[in-house]
Amino acid sequence: MTNSEIAVKTVLTAWQLQNAQVDKLIDKLTDEQWMSDTAPGRNSGIYLLGHLTAVNDGMISILGFGEKLHTELESVFLFSKDKSGQTMPSLASLKKSWKEINATLNAHIELMSTDDWFTRHTKVSEEVFANEPHRNKLNIIISRTHHQSYHLGQLAYL
Amino acid sequence: MTNSEIAVKTVLTAWQLQNAQVDKLIDKLTDEQWMSDTAPGRNSGIYLLGHLTAVNDGMISILGFGEKLHTELESVFLFSKDKSGQTMPSLASLKKSWKEINATLNAHIELMSTDDWFTRHTKVSEEVFANEPHRNKLNIIISRTHHQSYHLGQLAYL
Repeated sequence: MTNSEIAVKTVLTAWQLQNAQVDKLIDKLTDEQWMSDTAPGRNSGIYLLGHLTAVNDGMISILGFGEKLHTELESVFLFSKDKSGQTMPSLASLKKSWKEINATLNAHIELMSTDDWFTRHTKVSEEVFANEPHRNKLNIIISRTHHQSYHLGQLAYL
Repeated sequence: MTNSEIAVKTVLTAWQLQNAQVDKLIDKLTDEQWMSDTAPGRNSGIYLLGHLTAVNDGMISILGFGEKLHTELESVFLFSKDKSGQTMPSLASLKKSWKEINATLNAHIELMSTDDWFTRHTKVSEEVFANEPHRNKLNIIISRTHHQSYHLGQLAYL
């Protein structure tokens, strides 16, 4: 394996490990736990699940895999904070969206070559990318993994 | 830049960004906030600062940069959970250790070549590494960044 192949594989393995942690929480936590707050007055479990699901949905688009599957999640879970009075989808439908979105992501990820990961993501232009080659698809996986870890630390309090 | 150079740079930038988040909290939070719990009955701020400091100290050793600077942190912050009755160092001394350890890490990181990051870390033997090339120094940075993000999500509740 070349160094770039090793780097890509390591980053992807870490990403999938974090997603598996969320899967484990879905299996383990009761609905009552998901509906409660991670700390008094802080993000609820269901909000964080919706937020992580909406962020993963956005990855389908930013990685050039296609259109988002659930744009209806944006206004509640990306553009609004928890407890802002928005109506949330049911917990069951969020769990289903989480699995569906991740299955779609993984199907595309499996088809990517190492070099593909170093091409630009869809939110950066060719011109800008020529001078900022770190704004590539691999970077999206890295930053989204950190984002997920951050909220997993909060979900651990449920 | 080659793809592996880009990958290493992206991973290191993300790592330094997370550390800067902890630095920001050190500047921003009052001592009272650090001494309080992130959620009722959960990790306290000072415990998490000590824990992250001890983990970074361990990186000095696992990355082959030298001996840990503060082995006295291990028993309280790595081998014991919060509220286990151990005597903690003062908040001021922990903040000092955090900065000292990170300055040491960064001084060594600056001297590393891209290829160096793909060499084995000190906890894996040459024999095992021959078959598991992902157990390299870059992987340590990746996994420690996720660990730090996880606890930053909790520190955000202070």
